[in-house]
Amino acid sequence: MTVTAHRPRRNGVDVERLFATLDAVKEQPQIGGFQFRARNTWQSGTHSRTEFSDFHGAGQELEHRHPTVVEADHPDVLVGNDHAPTAAEYLLHAIAACLTSGIGNIAAARGVELTHVSSTVEGDIDLLGMLGLSDGSVRNGYQGIRVTFRIEGDADEETLRGIVEQSRRRSAVYDALVNPTPVVVDVVTG
Amino acid sequence: MTVTAHRPRRNGVDVERLFATLDAVKEQPQIGGFQFRARNTWQSGTHSRTEFSDFHGAGQELEHRHPTVVEADHPDVLVGNDHAPTAAEYLLHAIAACLTSGIGNIAAARGVELTHVSSTVEGDIDLLGMLGLSDGSVRNGYQGIRVTFRIEGDADEETLRGIVEQSRRRSAVYDALVNPTPVVVDVVTG
Repeated sequence: MTVTAHRPRRNGVDVERLFATLDAVKEQPQIGGFQFRARNTWQSGTHSRTEFSDFHGAGQELEHRHPTVVEADHPDVLVGNDHAPTAAEYLLHAIAACLTSGIGNIAAARGVELTHVSSTVEGDIDLLGMLGLSDGSVRNGYQGIRVTFRIEGDADEETLRGIVEQSRRRSAVYDALVNPTPVVVDVVTG
Repeated sequence: MTVTAHRPRRNGVDVERLFATLDAVKEQPQIGGFQFRARNTWQSGTHSRTEFSDFHGAGQELEHRHPTVVEADHPDVLVGNDHAPTAAEYLLHAIAACLTSGIGNIAAARGVELTHVSSTVEGDIDLLGMLGLSDGSVRNGYQGIRVTFRIEGDADEETLRGIVEQSRRRSAVYDALVNPTPVVVDVVTG
């Protein structure tokens, strides 16, 4: 790769800063240790609300520019009040958004100007698992998730496909789903 | 279990309808086949937007009462514009919300009136993996996720803990994270 004195901003990505950040983590690997956090509060029935505000990263406590609140509920057909999507649907958002942020960065780093990136995600799930009505052969979670990207930009098809593939290889959410992620559930009663 | 003629609504859960739904899926297992969907559109840089509107379930095409739009971005420290939480943070919402909806339902089914359920979720992630700076020993995704519930209601500690534990056992998102979930990524170029 040719190193240029100044890399132009591309796809809304500050490419110069992206490479500087990579170099900084290379030099000080300990700043790569992050902790993300969420706080959820039950509302009623299957309805709950989560706030994201602070996280730890780059060796310090940090705050998002503004806190974000999202909600989840079950739809009517699953005996909820459909105030919001189900928790399981947010996994589909997470995988699409993670791959898409990677695509923006990787295309910028490779000098490709993107004009369009969109995706549809489908997740198949059999409620027999979650409802405890299976003999153990049906899992609780998704049997499979399919993400279909439409990507357009000033590069040939092979290059565009290569950007999506590289994003998949580096994706935090893809890894969290396809490989086992340890989850500990603790309880404080009061 | 004693079957009563009418089970009261509890914790905002229509318990009668919950058991009727379980019976319906028991009698016609094919209505348990659901497909959830999400549509994501890249905005700029690492910023994207997802819409949830329709899904398939109970043998029919269904629409949420209202479509929901959520966004994701990288924070400033990860060279984004911090328009919204990261994709990885939505996994923390998903696990908390999934366990909490189960807690609401299971408590209602067991005749326990809940007065408070909240949780904090922490996910540890080392960016060396995602940034491709590790020799392969650091994974891209979370090294571990901890969910800590605070639960209060008209039952003893053992009963309350048992409700959380049963929710964990039946959770779709818990299963999707702790066990491998197949994810296929396709590309359409144009």
